[in-house]
Amino acid sequence: MEKLGTENEFMREACDLAIHSVNVGGGPFGCVITNPDGKIIGKGHNMVTINNDPTQHAEIVAIRAACQEISDYSLKDCTLYTSCEPCPMCLSAIYWARIQNVYYANDRNDAKEIGFDDEFIYEEFKKDVKDRSVKLKRVESDKALEGFGMWRDKTDKLHY
Amino acid sequence: MEKLGTENEFMREACDLAIHSVNVGGGPFGCVITNPDGKIIGKGHNMVTINNDPTQHAEIVAIRAACQEISDYSLKDCTLYTSCEPCPMCLSAIYWARIQNVYYANDRNDAKEIGFDDEFIYEEFKKDVKDRSVKLKRVESDKALEGFGMWRDKTDKLHY
Repeated sequence: MEKLGTENEFMREACDLAIHSVNVGGGPFGCVITNPDGKIIGKGHNMVTINNDPTQHAEIVAIRAACQEISDYSLKDCTLYTSCEPCPMCLSAIYWARIQNVYYANDRNDAKEIGFDDEFIYEEFKKDVKDRSVKLKRVESDKALEGFGMWRDKTDKLHY
Repeated sequence: MEKLGTENEFMREACDLAIHSVNVGGGPFGCVITNPDGKIIGKGHNMVTINNDPTQHAEIVAIRAACQEISDYSLKDCTLYTSCEPCPMCLSAIYWARIQNVYYANDRNDAKEIGFDDEFIYEEFKKDVKDRSVKLKRVESDKALEGFGMWRDKTDKLHY
């Protein structure tokens, strides 16, 4: 039987991915996801500048990889290990993936010290929408509710 | 010269994508991104269940498409039109993509009425970390700061 990792071993692997990431031109972040048997089913490191994709944070890359591995959009009962506390984008993705348990090593303040804005976005979320730097404006559209109505009335929809 | 769209035309296109999405098995969400010239450079619709990827919300798909189109990880000066108020994952991605202006049609309450949890995640963000449904635990790792140190000391790093 394959040797199962411990929490510290999985975290070491996430941190090794962060180090690898810097060496190949990515940001210093790595992530692994394990299934309930303690087997790694997805890995990732930051590839924002490598692939011109601002969403390719380590956790997002690992979530996508794990979902492909098990052919499911839910990672319920899986555990995520990340070298740094997740930013709001990645934490939200963790919610959508239904992951319940997350381990991290460096925190958002460590990230801030080397120039990453995670804390800034967390602060923005605490503000009223009108006071945020991103301006959100509602536009009326006669078509807006049509898709929602189709979804509501669809009898064979796949809830996610 | 190509006819440029107005806000309402772009929003109509986002809503048409949401309708298309339901027809092809995705969630009822669509998004378009325009450059400062008013040209659409990226589109997307929800493909979570289609592609087994919980991160493939319409806005994320459109951001990725737009970044590939212009070969840049920044969409500064671009505008995003989405058929529904962005969830926290997508709003954070909008911050990371440096988009400043967002237009939406349906809001998070409309989304809640047809069974989507955006509001739940927004509420979770307001809670203390210890009170959230996702459990975050810090793990000490001797390797954790190594990647951060490499990044700090890297002289040719690409800030993003």
